Amino acid sequence: MAASLTLSDLGEDAVVRALTALLPEAVQSVPLGPGDDCAAVAIAGSDEVELLKADSVVEGVHFLAGEDMRRVGWKALCRAISDIAAMGGLPLHALVTIAAAPSMQMLDLLAFYEGITKAAASHGISIVGGETGKTTGPLVCSIFLTGKVRASECVTRGGGRPGDVLFVTGLFGGSLASGRHLDFKPRLEEGRWLATHHFRSAMMDVSDGLAADLPRLALASKCGVSLAPERLPRHAGCSVEEALCEGEDFELLLAVPAQKVEGLKRDWRRAFPLVCLTDIGSLTEADKGCTPSGIFTKGGYDHFQ
Amino acid sequence: MAASLTLSDLGEDAVVRALTALLPEAVQSVPLGPGDDCAAVAIAGSDEVELLKADSVVEGVHFLAGEDMRRVGWKALCRAISDIAAMGGLPLHALVTIAAAPSMQMLDLLAFYEGITKAAASHGISIVGGETGKTTGPLVCSIFLTGKVRASECVTRGGGRPGDVLFVTGLFGGSLASGRHLDFKPRLEEGRWLATHHFRSAMMDVSDGLAADLPRLALASKCGVSLAPERLPRHAGCSVEEALCEGEDFELLLAVPAQKVEGLKRDWRRAFPLVCLTDIGSLTEADKGCTPSGIFTKGGYDHFQ
Repeated sequence: MAASLTLSDLGEDAVVRALTALLPEAVQSVPLGPGDDCAAVAIAGSDEVELLKADSVVEGVHFLAGEDMRRVGWKALCRAISDIAAMGGLPLHALVTIAAAPSMQMLDLLAFYEGITKAAASHGISIVGGETGKTTGPLVCSIFLTGKVRASECVTRGGGRPGDVLFVTGLFGGSLASGRHLDFKPRLEEGRWLATHHFRSAMMDVSDGLAADLPRLALASKCGVSLAPERLPRHAGCSVEEALCEGEDFELLLAVPAQKVEGLKRDWRRAFPLVCLTDIGSLTEADKGCTPSGIFTKGGYDHFQ
Repeated sequence: MAASLTLSDLGEDAVVRALTALLPEAVQSVPLGPGDDCAAVAIAGSDEVELLKADSVVEGVHFLAGEDMRRVGWKALCRAISDIAAMGGLPLHALVTIAAAPSMQMLDLLAFYEGITKAAASHGISIVGGETGKTTGPLVCSIFLTGKVRASECVTRGGGRPGDVLFVTGLFGGSLASGRHLDFKPRLEEGRWLATHHFRSAMMDVSDGLAADLPRLALASKCGVSLAPERLPRHAGCSVEEALCEGEDFELLLAVPAQKVEGLKRDWRRAFPLVCLTDIGSLTEADKGCTPSGIFTKGGYDHFQ
């Protein structure tokens, strides 16, 4: 690798690929290592797997100084819950690490932590530990969340097949401008329901925008994509591009075998009458339709670019 | 709480107490919540408990810019391994979150991650996931590490009783100045051996200096302390105060019932002939000896002060 390359030269996905290339081959206790919404680890003598998720919020990136810190705390934990939901899992235990400036107001840190504990209580999660430390820079909070799911119900990004219909929950776009990103409700019930009812072949949560996340699901499933961007359900006032690229929506994206589509639509309306579920396209053979990297003229959120 | 208090006004222990006071009472699946080296979580149908640990390193706090990033990565994971060791556990799976400036050199990030993967391989740990994100401040890396230990062998800080003799492994002082803090070997074998041989009533790792950490063990055990600071084994050239207060030693501190002391000394010499084990004092009734907060005229490392 050229000596002068920075993270922003490479971009987020290339950085992650280079780092994970350093890891040895997966071991037996790890059914699913890096690259999905969560890692999945075998539990000896159990038909369940343990889900492990790490996720961070950084001041100035995921929230701005001056924001209501209770809502920021709520978001910090709910981001990780959204990833457990995308695997069909139930969240269990959380650890919270916070790197903060010594000059931070204690009331702000308390409000932040209150938001985290409120999100934990709302989703049946026990906060069992963590760490506080000093930084000279912006606040960084990393959340570690464990969960569990029956191995037979664990949903990955890689299970999609050509012909599967792509669905999304909810509406897209304007999450940051409206402040919705600070109050969102992770699709935990919906994810559990989709997992236990076996309607889906692949699933993930959409946090970096469909323009970044749909290619990830398609790549993991070794498929191409046929997409009707104008079908993407949007919040009022949002353009198609905003809905595709802004990110922070925390909705579910799933692939559904064609023969299960009618059953899914019927049962979903009964289970979640207030949550829209919209088909936006389909997976194709890898060499048909668009290649994943060629779907969008403009990408979703990239941390380093 | 007064509106103008900052984290540095309060100090690390008071900040942590205020945050954990927000948490609800522990639930059944959590034998051991916040406050020990690791959290311990029940595993259904198993005589083992799962250990969960989160720990961070921050540029400018735990290492300086320009440091060999391979060694920094080694330290980042070994800090968390040291906490698993202090509970008598075996580490299993790690997640790594990194918040980095987009202008960071990719080669530096790769070196850092190589150090982490080397530490993982050396200790039988699988890195199963993580996250990379952007910050405008110094590098922050949070490590999440799981482990396991038989419930009957899990060692906490709170098991000490008056009359127990206090021991430490290894030597103290000068860790930062010598660079030892970047290459230390966590006392994993020693911790496992101490746990399975049932010599100890309480144990923790010494990372913030004995002056900060011994009071924590004494408080958790509801004991006072009788300490002979000049007995603390020191690296060459270090004063008693440096050995007590500097921190970053990553040695084990343990309390041993008096009737087990001779057996421990005899068996330790056979098991670990190259690692010194030194008695430095004893636990007393809470109202005898020194109270924990009165032991030292100068405290150990406090993140916020």
